[in-house]
Amino acid sequence: MRTDGRTAEQLREVNMITNFTKHPEGSVLITVGETKVICNASVEDRVPPFMRGQGKGWITAEYAMLPRATEQRNIRESSKGKVSGRTMEIQRLIGRALRAVIDLDLIGERTIWVDCDVIQADGGTRTASITGAFVAVALACGKLLKEEKISKMPIKHFLAATSVGVTEEGSSILDLCYEEDSTASVDMNVVMTDQNEFVELQGTGEEATFSPNQLNELISLAQKGINELFSIQKDALGDVAERIGEGK
Amino acid sequence: MRTDGRTAEQLREVNMITNFTKHPEGSVLITVGETKVICNASVEDRVPPFMRGQGKGWITAEYAMLPRATEQRNIRESSKGKVSGRTMEIQRLIGRALRAVIDLDLIGERTIWVDCDVIQADGGTRTASITGAFVAVALACGKLLKEEKISKMPIKHFLAATSVGVTEEGSSILDLCYEEDSTASVDMNVVMTDQNEFVELQGTGEEATFSPNQLNELISLAQKGINELFSIQKDALGDVAERIGEGK
Amino acid sequence: MRTDGRTAEQLREVNMITNFTKHPEGSVLITVGETKVICNASVEDRVPPFMRGQGKGWITAEYAMLPRATEQRNIRESSKGKVSGRTMEIQRLIGRALRAVIDLDLIGERTIWVDCDVIQADGGTRTASITGAFVAVALACGKLLKEEKISKMPIKHFLAATSVGVTEEGSSILDLCYEEDSTASVDMNVVMTDQNEFVELQGTGEEATFSPNQLNELISLAQKGINELFSIQKDALGDVAERIGEGK
Amino acid sequence: MRTDGRTAEQLREVNMITNFTKHPEGSVLITVGETKVICNASVEDRVPPFMRGQGKGWITAEYAMLPRATEQRNIRESSKGKVSGRTMEIQRLIGRALRAVIDLDLIGERTIWVDCDVIQADGGTRTASITGAFVAVALACGKLLKEEKISKMPIKHFLAATSVGVTEEGSSILDLCYEEDSTASVDMNVVMTDQNEFVELQGTGEEATFSPNQLNELISLAQKGINELFSIQKDALGDVAERIGEGK
Amino acid sequence: MRTDGRTAEQLREVNMITNFTKHPEGSVLITVGETKVICNASVEDRVPPFMRGQGKGWITAEYAMLPRATEQRNIRESSKGKVSGRTMEIQRLIGRALRAVIDLDLIGERTIWVDCDVIQADGGTRTASITGAFVAVALACGKLLKEEKISKMPIKHFLAATSVGVTEEGSSILDLCYEEDSTASVDMNVVMTDQNEFVELQGTGEEATFSPNQLNELISLAQKGINELFSIQKDALGDVAERIGEGK
Amino acid sequence: MRTDGRTAEQLREVNMITNFTKHPEGSVLITVGETKVICNASVEDRVPPFMRGQGKGWITAEYAMLPRATEQRNIRESSKGKVSGRTMEIQRLIGRALRAVIDLDLIGERTIWVDCDVIQADGGTRTASITGAFVAVALACGKLLKEEKISKMPIKHFLAATSVGVTEEGSSILDLCYEEDSTASVDMNVVMTDQNEFVELQGTGEEATFSPNQLNELISLAQKGINELFSIQKDALGDVAERIGEGK
Repeated sequence: MRTDGRTAEQLREVNMITNFTKHPEGSVLITVGETKVICNASVEDRVPPFMRGQGKGWITAEYAMLPRATEQRNIRESSKGKVSGRTMEIQRLIGRALRAVIDLDLIGERTIWVDCDVIQADGGTRTASITGAFVAVALACGKLLKEEKISKMPIKHFLAATSVGVTEEGSSILDLCYEEDSTASVDMNVVMTDQNEFVELQGTGEEATFSPNQLNELISLAQKGINELFSIQKDALGDVAERIGEGK
Repeated sequence: MRTDGRTAEQLREVNMITNFTKHPEGSVLITVGETKVICNASVEDRVPPFMRGQGKGWITAEYAMLPRATEQRNIRESSKGKVSGRTMEIQRLIGRALRAVIDLDLIGERTIWVDCDVIQADGGTRTASITGAFVAVALACGKLLKEEKISKMPIKHFLAATSVGVTEEGSSILDLCYEEDSTASVDMNVVMTDQNEFVELQGTGEEATFSPNQLNELISLAQKGINELFSIQKDALGDVAERIGEGK
Repeated sequence: MRTDGRTAEQLREVNMITNFTKHPEGSVLITVGETKVICNASVEDRVPPFMRGQGKGWITAEYAMLPRATEQRNIRESSKGKVSGRTMEIQRLIGRALRAVIDLDLIGERTIWVDCDVIQADGGTRTASITGAFVAVALACGKLLKEEKISKMPIKHFLAATSVGVTEEGSSILDLCYEEDSTASVDMNVVMTDQNEFVELQGTGEEATFSPNQLNELISLAQKGINELFSIQKDALGDVAERIGEGK
Repeated sequence: MRTDGRTAEQLREVNMITNFTKHPEGSVLITVGETKVICNASVEDRVPPFMRGQGKGWITAEYAMLPRATEQRNIRESSKGKVSGRTMEIQRLIGRALRAVIDLDLIGERTIWVDCDVIQADGGTRTASITGAFVAVALACGKLLKEEKISKMPIKHFLAATSVGVTEEGSSILDLCYEEDSTASVDMNVVMTDQNEFVELQGTGEEATFSPNQLNELISLAQKGINELFSIQKDALGDVAERIGEGK
Repeated sequence: MRTDGRTAEQLREVNMITNFTKHPEGSVLITVGETKVICNASVEDRVPPFMRGQGKGWITAEYAMLPRATEQRNIRESSKGKVSGRTMEIQRLIGRALRAVIDLDLIGERTIWVDCDVIQADGGTRTASITGAFVAVALACGKLLKEEKISKMPIKHFLAATSVGVTEEGSSILDLCYEEDSTASVDMNVVMTDQNEFVELQGTGEEATFSPNQLNELISLAQKGINELFSIQKDALGDVAERIGEGK
Repeated sequence: MRTDGRTAEQLREVNMITNFTKHPEGSVLITVGETKVICNASVEDRVPPFMRGQGKGWITAEYAMLPRATEQRNIRESSKGKVSGRTMEIQRLIGRALRAVIDLDLIGERTIWVDCDVIQADGGTRTASITGAFVAVALACGKLLKEEKISKMPIKHFLAATSVGVTEEGSSILDLCYEEDSTASVDMNVVMTDQNEFVELQGTGEEATFSPNQLNELISLAQKGINELFSIQKDALGDVAERIGEGK
């Protein structure tokens, strides 16, 4: 039994409030247990200089936490004047993951900016960001379709992410909260498509190691959790969900 | 009649959700019309080096906007590597205003960090930040009182802020939304206490000027609006409201 | 009686040396008591990218202090690698104030850079900067007129600034020196035109507040002082003074 | 057959020159095919502030490339004034990997700085860095042992890394050179110990995905390659190799 | 005959106004022809961390130009967020030169900050800065002596600097103004003591070279010019001049 | 007799490995005693914006040290986020020296980037960088000639550099190693052409001074050393050496 009463293979409760703020083309507040992330997708009608004239689009992501999203207040990265290594790692991951399931040719010379801002953190902020960002981008694409700026849904597959890990006692668990994450000996983030394929797999022994068997166990857990996330994404997207895959 | 149907002397609807996020000692989501700001107050048990050993506290504020809080996406200040002049001006204003009504001796050697993060902007973000930050700080002080870390409420007076301005046509109006603000010829931010005293007054002619008579008109409007804000703050604070002023 | 023997409503002695350095199109050394500021106006024959092709000009200001302009040496902002919030606030104020009395259409596609460098500080550096910068810009415009690069004086009104404040004892005083400023409970900077209109009004209670009555008293004092400054500006400008307002 | 004539499961030729430069406590030039990295380990007799007084040590890594290590010259990160996201990601990975096999308690209050400087790049610079850095750190620990500053070898296991990937045509290959890496659809970096356990696993679909079966294939290839690297490390370390594991 | 009518071996007119600003312990405005530099020496009663507890002092220099000290306005280094290579080179030179003639043991645990701010530039700003800074530091030491904070003058010798160069036509000339400097094929800065010894010699062929004979000619010219500067420094220093050398 | 057994006028052993890394157009590892510098010359087919359209080229240099090139590890400049004054001084010197012997018109609209990366330091890194960089640039020009991208060798003269100095005991010595350099009272860097002309001369008294006689002695020593360096450069360059001077 885990500290919050879950079984080893149980996700935390996941909710999504779509159209959370009014300006972005796609906006979602995702909550995964006590973790809350605002995921906004903004469409800009141009691409970065290195991509101009190719008729294709670009997707890039940024990630940040409010200073008091965490138990202890963190110094604002704008005050420090630089983005931390952790932040860079996460925002590169989010962008890469989204690009794996989106046909950039189908969005035309547009940039989709994805902003994931954690307003409350309790572990798993990067995987919640990916899962929420997918929905925000899908909503933004839905808007482009509705306004007939594009003719086919550029998203090829559903995409979601979760974390899995090995506790100090050696058990494999799904969807770690902060307390679990901070004591786990192995931590793995898994990003998958609804084709049951991996987009990204990042497993790390925290001053520890893990065996091939443990790897297999962790992957099974992650697959199970991610499949549940796909249902929640479908519910949140409504009609837009049905068009995903049409441009494959 | 204004674009959103208000009279010249009417505030937008104002709401406050207290305890909006779970980690901060004081947390409020303030909405003023379509403007939404998360105001968090964090208590740290130490003061900056230049204040150590004096037995008194410190209050400082930071302000930011999510990139897509606005109609057009703004570049993140952490990505640019520096805080803009506008941001600095606003966060200095918020901190200064709060310090005017708080007895720093009564909070002991503690720092109260105030974070105002605008998640949706529609004009008046700096005055909404002050009005909401006051409530967040009061909640944080209420928590310190309840935990008996301090014995007297350090807040001497209520504090709230609003904007007033002169339209292109020359009418004085209260609580400008973004559309009004961007065309106004005069813009004034007023911060007051419930003693009907000014804490800060910043009036600016935007490529225009204003007469002493107009100044008086604007101030009357502001006083009216701020008095309404005090009621809303009192409701949001509940019991804590009653202790304000006890340490005067 | 004030520390330097002045009455409450007396300005310090104000002097201006025009053409203080040889390169700028307009150059003034303004001294207000012991405060000394070099105000240089530089004309550049192009505007920033966001203004190109509109046929109108731009005015922007920068402000700095020599490290030992003050009693204690300050670290150079170039060494710190960033401009402080205070500096940003001041240079934004100077630029905004100047733009309020200048018809940018009449200067053509040119930028006027205003540099206010404080070589000795004794309170009131921002208001001395505005008062001196006005003269520097007027001289630069005079040069453009003389060289027939522009045909009408783009300056619509005279512009000057001073500070007023409330002492710890509660008296209102004009033109605070550093010693007065550092103990005042209220500090207000007032920028006005010779039409007796406000351009900017910034009143701040320093851990204190002020009443509507005190506001009125302070404004009267400021009006009196600023009227004296207009005379000094006119003397400094000579012939150029007469053309001000012609393009209104 | 691969572009350089290797089979799918063949490593490039790997060499290590120990004591490559004279100042560091441990210094290695590792060459993996045409990739060349100087790995230096520096011992400093103190730890960062947050670790003082705990009697244990710290290991941290930095990674850089000479500007012309690559086909096209890159701008120096010191000139740009900031470290790129890619560099941060790599140096965090190297440090984390080394810490997984080193008992920090056994190195006392010392910091081991690992500097991996790529002087020629042809793919796989991060895995070559880890493999070489391990040897540099082992040499530095050997020196501490010889000088009797520590009494037991703090390294618990051998550690090495390689890359594996899936080509556009769908074949799994070991140890990708730059040309292969730039066209691969999947790229995975694997860090393992000589206990056949994973320390880090980072698989990424580059605008592509990979199946669980492909994952297993890639892992087998990586295990094979890493086992060969352990032999090369042992040869390079000589006597020092024998002490690894003694402090487990 | 030179553009300004001087002979090849003639200095421009040199003047020094001592006590130019009121706060610094030593303050000089030096003018060398049209070049004008404010040289301020500030005494701080502590030394940088790396020198604490040794009972000796430190001298360091900073150099800057007002944006419009030059014909074309330069961007402020504080706005750019970094100090240019040229500025660093010059301020390192000024500090090093001053330290060569000052006995740091005799100033106790104090730092002398030297600030050279060019308000008008017409060539030779770095040598004018050294010549003026010497006087500012001597005045500051004189003040320390008068206040009996130190007992012996720490300055061992007079120190002054000038530039020499070779024109496009091949003539050697003394004290180049900007026009001469910008076309010279060789430019040399010479810093000497009144013992006729060199402190610093920096000769540079600007896309040109110079022979050993030219070197000798340039050095003779510089010696002649610097000897004249010593007289001007002595006049400016008055009584303080007599104590220089007493602590040798 | 010197610490390493050399006579006062003896260079350390100098070696050059050409084509040290494979990507640069010119690549040299120069070793001067224990000082080792990788000098790479990269040719880019465009010039900086300020030089476009003039049909001539540009040469610029960058210099850095690996963190552990020195006895004590230095913090990486990319981590500090800025380039030190020392680094800037050195890289400006290298670029200026090279430009003095190269006819920029003959290289067409190309930039030659010279990167000098010190992998092991034992004094004289800046002079070794110049001597090695000259060879790297000559090799790169040789390659342009061979590929018939240019028709004449743009290098007019050989160029090399060495250091000379005065020991604490007053002897003049050639080519100082780190130990000698750190105790020398005078340090001079001399850059010359094979026409026996100076390109750059930088002599500095380190809290000391030097006489005209000492200057002459130092220059003779430097001339002797630099002549030996020319032979070593010629050997390293082989055929390319013969074309130097052809475009004069």
